[in-house]
Amino acid sequence: MAGLHVRSVLVTGANRGIGLGFVQHFLRMPNPPQWIFAGCRDPKGQRELQNLASKHPNIIIIPLEVSDPASIKAAAAKVGEHLGGSGLNLLINNAGILKAKSLDNEVLQDMTETYTTNTVGPMLMGQAFLPLLKKAAQGSPGSGLSCSKAAIVNISSIGGSIASAFGWELMQVTSYRCSKAALNMLSKCQSLAYKEHGILCVALHPGWVQTDMGIPCLAPLVQGMLKVLSSLSEKDTGAYLDWEGNVIPW
Amino acid sequence: MAGLHVRSVLVTGANRGIGLGFVQHFLRMPNPPQWIFAGCRDPKGQRELQNLASKHPNIIIIPLEVSDPASIKAAAAKVGEHLGGSGLNLLINNAGILKAKSLDNEVLQDMTETYTTNTVGPMLMGQAFLPLLKKAAQGSPGSGLSCSKAAIVNISSIGGSIASAFGWELMQVTSYRCSKAALNMLSKCQSLAYKEHGILCVALHPGWVQTDMGIPCLAPLVQGMLKVLSSLSEKDTGAYLDWEGNVIPW
Ligand SMILES: NC(=O)c1ccc[n+]([C@@H]2O[C@H](COP(=O)([O-])OP(=O)(O)OC[C@H]3O[C@@H](n4cnc5c(N)ncnc54)[C@H](OP(=O)(O)O)[C@@H]3O)[C@@H](O)[C@H]2O)c1
Ligand SMILES: NC(=O)c1ccc[n+]([C@@H]2O[C@H](COP(=O)([O-])OP(=O)(O)OC[C@H]3O[C@@H](n4cnc5c(N)ncnc54)[C@H](OP(=O)(O)O)[C@@H]3O)[C@@H](O)[C@H]2O)c1
Repeated sequence: MAGLHVRSVLVTGANRGIGLGFVQHFLRMPNPPQWIFAGCRDPKGQRELQNLASKHPNIIIIPLEVSDPASIKAAAAKVGEHLGGSGLNLLINNAGILKAKSLDNEVLQDMTETYTTNTVGPMLMGQAFLPLLKKAAQGSPGSGLSCSKAAIVNISSIGGSIASAFGWELMQVTSYRCSKAALNMLSKCQSLAYKEHGILCVALHPGWVQTDMGIPCLAPLVQGMLKVLSSLSEKDTGAYLDWEGNVIPW
Repeated sequence: MAGLHVRSVLVTGANRGIGLGFVQHFLRMPNPPQWIFAGCRDPKGQRELQNLASKHPNIIIIPLEVSDPASIKAAAAKVGEHLGGSGLNLLINNAGILKAKSLDNEVLQDMTETYTTNTVGPMLMGQAFLPLLKKAAQGSPGSGLSCSKAAIVNISSIGGSIASAFGWELMQVTSYRCSKAALNMLSKCQSLAYKEHGILCVALHPGWVQTDMGIPCLAPLVQGMLKVLSSLSEKDTGAYLDWEGNVIPW
């Protein structure tokens, strides 16, 4: 992780699973971020995150429901206050849902709910945090793009790869697959729109994690992702990568 | 079009634009379909379609709002009644919307509205018409897949190609692009789920048409699409093609 130096990072869905894993790994870095904003839609009763935050004053828990534009705006305002005049280096859109269903059983409501959380949420987050990301980019030396400067990382899934249709026999989850393919498109759109502002944007497949099973199997994947993020530069913006840095076909 | 022989076809959004173009071209075939179901969300006041239907008894106008599951179910029941015991050969999911906006101006409601019409609608249509498509496949001789036997054709757009990001400088339309990338994923999912039922599924980019400008510029593209459809076989199910049969990158 020698290459990743962020003063500030926001992770959505940071109360459990991969999101919590990111927070823990940022804390363990040789140079931990000065601000780790842990987005969480229901801060009450999140014992693990609250324990961490009570020991590490650089963790700031931010109430954040990513399917609610008002909640996102309030979160951006709060983060902006904490940061004072400085910007946000890294936005990790990690929050996501999956409703396990076969194609035959998909319904309108699950389709739109999954899309709203997994795709629209990251779009609204990008819009709301754009001023802070721009500020971080402007405040960083050098002209290239990097995750240490300013970046949006959308946690996608190989389930969103249309070309591979990975794991179809085991899991159809059409609502999830469509939302992640759309998230990959969003990442491409964000990369094109935000490049001129000095912001790198990627879609990242975290690998398969039994998130109930906790840290032991989560750690190498989160470490892998942070290593990948540390290595990204201008040429990678708009890419779709896995936790080892391999390009995944759209 | 020598290779396309459908006894029955349903086109959604058939009252204008490309959908109406399909209806007109089916009529002009050497062997026109016995049933051309013209889906239309507001049948009243659709003069062109009603004129056509008054002259051609094989056109049946079907009230159909593709974002409304109840309307879809009612349409499937009505089509089933008309068909008596036989199946539906070809379902063309053509209805679609585009809200022209830059990424900065996209809002939650446009994102979900566009997704509901462009992506969820085709999924619900596939589910509701599956029994009729299966029946058509079972009633057709031969073991391969073809559009003359049973097929779902989703009218996508090159705007949904993540790899190409075609036309970004002219039109950002993130809501539309995300919905069409997701529609491409849906087409892939449908192709995998419905192959065992003998149903071919593809995503098709119709080319760029000034649909207000009417028939003169629309005709070659619709003709091109019908020629492509006539040529498809088992190896093409799950593909993403343009009106000339070229493969588009996801
Ligand atoms: N686990 C895997 O193997 C795997 C594989 C590929 C991709 N991914 C992706 O990785 C990301 C994290 O997955 P995970 O396995 O850690 O999932 P998880 O254990 O189910 O955790 C999901 C997190 O997202 C939050 N969340 C869900 N909806 C939200 C909303 N509307 N607003 C705010 N937060 C919301 C949850 O908060 P609550 O606690 O309040 O529900 C939770 O913190 C997801 O995007 C997922 O698609 C995971
Ligand atoms: N034109 C192009 O250059 C182009 C390029 C690429 C892809 N496409 C795709 O081709 C398809 C047709 O496009 P077009 O140019 O013919 O569009 P259009 O002229 O705007 O016609 C759209 C059609 O879809 C119908 N529709 C919209 N929402 C509907 C809903 N919720 N339920 C039922 N019907 C609905 C409309 O009905 P109303 O009359 O009731 O609104 C109309 O019949 C679309 O999927 C579009 O994305 C077009």
